[in-house]
Amino acid sequence: MQVAILGCGVVGRGTADLLTANAEAIAARVGGPVTVKYILERREIPDCPYQALFVKDFETIVSDPEVSVVIEAMGGSHPAYDFSLRALEAGKHVITSNKEVVANFGVDLLRVAREKGVLYLFEASVGGGIPVLHPLASDLSGNLIDSISGILNGTTNYILTRMYEAGASFADALAEAQEKGYAEANPAADVEGLDACRKIAILAAIATGTLVRTGDIHTEGITAIRSADVSAASSLGYAVKLLGRMVRTAAGEFFLMVAPFLVDKANPLAGISDVFNGVMIHGNFVDNVLFYGRGAGACPTASAMVGDLLHVALGGAPYHSAWRAAEEGDLTDFSYFAARRYLAVGDCERNSVEVIFGDAEFLASPAGEIQLLTPPMSEREYEDKATRLSSCGGKILSHIRIL
Amino acid sequence: MQVAILGCGVVGRGTADLLTANAEAIAARVGGPVTVKYILERREIPDCPYQALFVKDFETIVSDPEVSVVIEAMGGSHPAYDFSLRALEAGKHVITSNKEVVANFGVDLLRVAREKGVLYLFEASVGGGIPVLHPLASDLSGNLIDSISGILNGTTNYILTRMYEAGASFADALAEAQEKGYAEANPAADVEGLDACRKIAILAAIATGTLVRTGDIHTEGITAIRSADVSAASSLGYAVKLLGRMVRTAAGEFFLMVAPFLVDKANPLAGISDVFNGVMIHGNFVDNVLFYGRGAGACPTASAMVGDLLHVALGGAPYHSAWRAAEEGDLTDFSYFAARRYLAVGDCERNSVEVIFGDAEFLASPAGEIQLLTPPMSEREYEDKATRLSSCGGKILSHIRIL
Repeated sequence: MQVAILGCGVVGRGTADLLTANAEAIAARVGGPVTVKYILERREIPDCPYQALFVKDFETIVSDPEVSVVIEAMGGSHPAYDFSLRALEAGKHVITSNKEVVANFGVDLLRVAREKGVLYLFEASVGGGIPVLHPLASDLSGNLIDSISGILNGTTNYILTRMYEAGASFADALAEAQEKGYAEANPAADVEGLDACRKIAILAAIATGTLVRTGDIHTEGITAIRSADVSAASSLGYAVKLLGRMVRTAAGEFFLMVAPFLVDKANPLAGISDVFNGVMIHGNFVDNVLFYGRGAGACPTASAMVGDLLHVALGGAPYHSAWRAAEEGDLTDFSYFAARRYLAVGDCERNSVEVIFGDAEFLASPAGEIQLLTPPMSEREYEDKATRLSSCGGKILSHIRIL
Repeated sequence: MQVAILGCGVVGRGTADLLTANAEAIAARVGGPVTVKYILERREIPDCPYQALFVKDFETIVSDPEVSVVIEAMGGSHPAYDFSLRALEAGKHVITSNKEVVANFGVDLLRVAREKGVLYLFEASVGGGIPVLHPLASDLSGNLIDSISGILNGTTNYILTRMYEAGASFADALAEAQEKGYAEANPAADVEGLDACRKIAILAAIATGTLVRTGDIHTEGITAIRSADVSAASSLGYAVKLLGRMVRTAAGEFFLMVAPFLVDKANPLAGISDVFNGVMIHGNFVDNVLFYGRGAGACPTASAMVGDLLHVALGGAPYHSAWRAAEEGDLTDFSYFAARRYLAVGDCERNSVEVIFGDAEFLASPAGEIQLLTPPMSEREYEDKATRLSSCGGKILSHIRIL
């Protein structure tokens, strides 16, 4: 079996490394060698051991009948999507770690793959090396999936862990993450939740058959989380985690969101720290199942890519159902989503807060603010109360839902 | 698609319940209904809604060409093995939750399945509803699997959790587990480690291709664990967990064992409590991955059975490699297995313990015993030291390895 890798960045290089390091075991498994014939890479990378495989023109790859699998490791929507589409149309299997392409174009790419009798697989796009998409689509597929709650972004989880462990501010923890190479110079896609948003869109598409556009998913990041919030949460027995969530309603619609949540320390998600990812899935028969591991990095991502490749090599069937693009009414209006909330309020008498938020639980609070836990209320109710509070001169310093 | 279920006990009934409750979603997934045509059950079960499907003779099932899948939920080696073999030989796929049959006869049954071009699947045999065998055999198969450490038995995990949380003795915690229906009247297979032993044999067979006989696996249960050990461990930052372990050596051989271990609370396995199961797998590229959930019970086990069934229904390929029976030299002699140890010693001066165990870490110990943590040493070294200790009149009150 001969494959081509698109891109020799971190992920492409890691995938080539795995295929080299474990070549013997892989050949034994498949019944013959798996060879990288080309790597599409326009840059010169003088110290790269795979330079002899570099080609600059995708035509070389797509027109070569010996290449049966294309491993897309370019990142970004274009030309990654275009090349993936052309490879599928040419009857080649496509494997990717590119969550942006899957979240934006998964409906089309899965349809074309099915029409052409080839596979489009993307285990590496969510949770790095953690097997979660295939188990969800296959092993758990006898269940109705009621909910998914995932720590889907390692950068933000690292930042929240440092805020918890070292009492660091968001800015300091972010700087530390950047120093360690866990966060990019422009960290917006991570800290504002877009990365997690793409991943929950993919997970939900597998669970529901419906792919929701990321722009339609309520997405909050962690930039507003204060160390005071993290320590208040901790003393109450909660960790603060950025979660991607899918919650199915009784009517068969579902909520989708990315937001920070207070997670009870008894919940295994609360113990997932540093750059690790974890996905908790609730099925109507299996109850809760958790998948945990490294959500990024060259080696874990390569593990998932090659897992998909071996599925193809062993004649595996397509396990993703056809997805359809979400329509009006698939996604429940987020303003109906109900949760208990942690609030920190400033410039306000406790009396006003009590009048507005009813039987809340008031916490021992730092000077200058009032911290409280509210009973469950919808976004709509909360917005209404927040407006009333602000008309009394009060200010919401922080607002985090409770899982 | 028409299936037959062998046995209408907890698991068989649960599987029928799932196929009934989620029938619509399953039919949509598969592109047609999945129907239970027969349930093999000799007993009369007057309140069972599936009585009309009961047959008493396996011949009815095996000779019916409309039945393409047999779901074995009988338990025990015989006739479960014999029926599974005959079903495979008749060209029917077989799905089972029966760890005893897989651990004893997996080599043969996988071979016959392959010869007949059908599938033999057994996701439900390890970890109940948790997807772990399929991910290990498929998604992680690009890795060399260095180690597996699993909490594989819910009964013993419940007992250890109660000993930890309530300071209960083993006997009291066992009685509580029996009251709650988590432990059987004869709990030997659970508390002496045989159940976990079968499961680690299966996991290791997937990781290595070699099935080791359960009788050749070093197996200790938890009957000797004292509440004093659990509390000493806890104050040191460890939980006591019964683990099934596979550890690959540099020479490509491997150790297999079932034994209680002290697990650092920073390790996610330490946080898995009550009847939950968890399996940590280390691959050379993916690093550590953890799978967590309900390891037993009608509904989770049914989830795994039906996951396998949908794999068959969707034309999935066999994902288990051919296994071979272990030979001399596959399994490393357990006496070479090295670990740090927690010891409690009685009837002995600290001085003698120091002389024999070298630079151990001595703990603040309850009256009448000396507790210590030893440096890493092999089983052989340990046995030697324990003999010397006993020749000084000392007595090992407890001995638990450290993960």
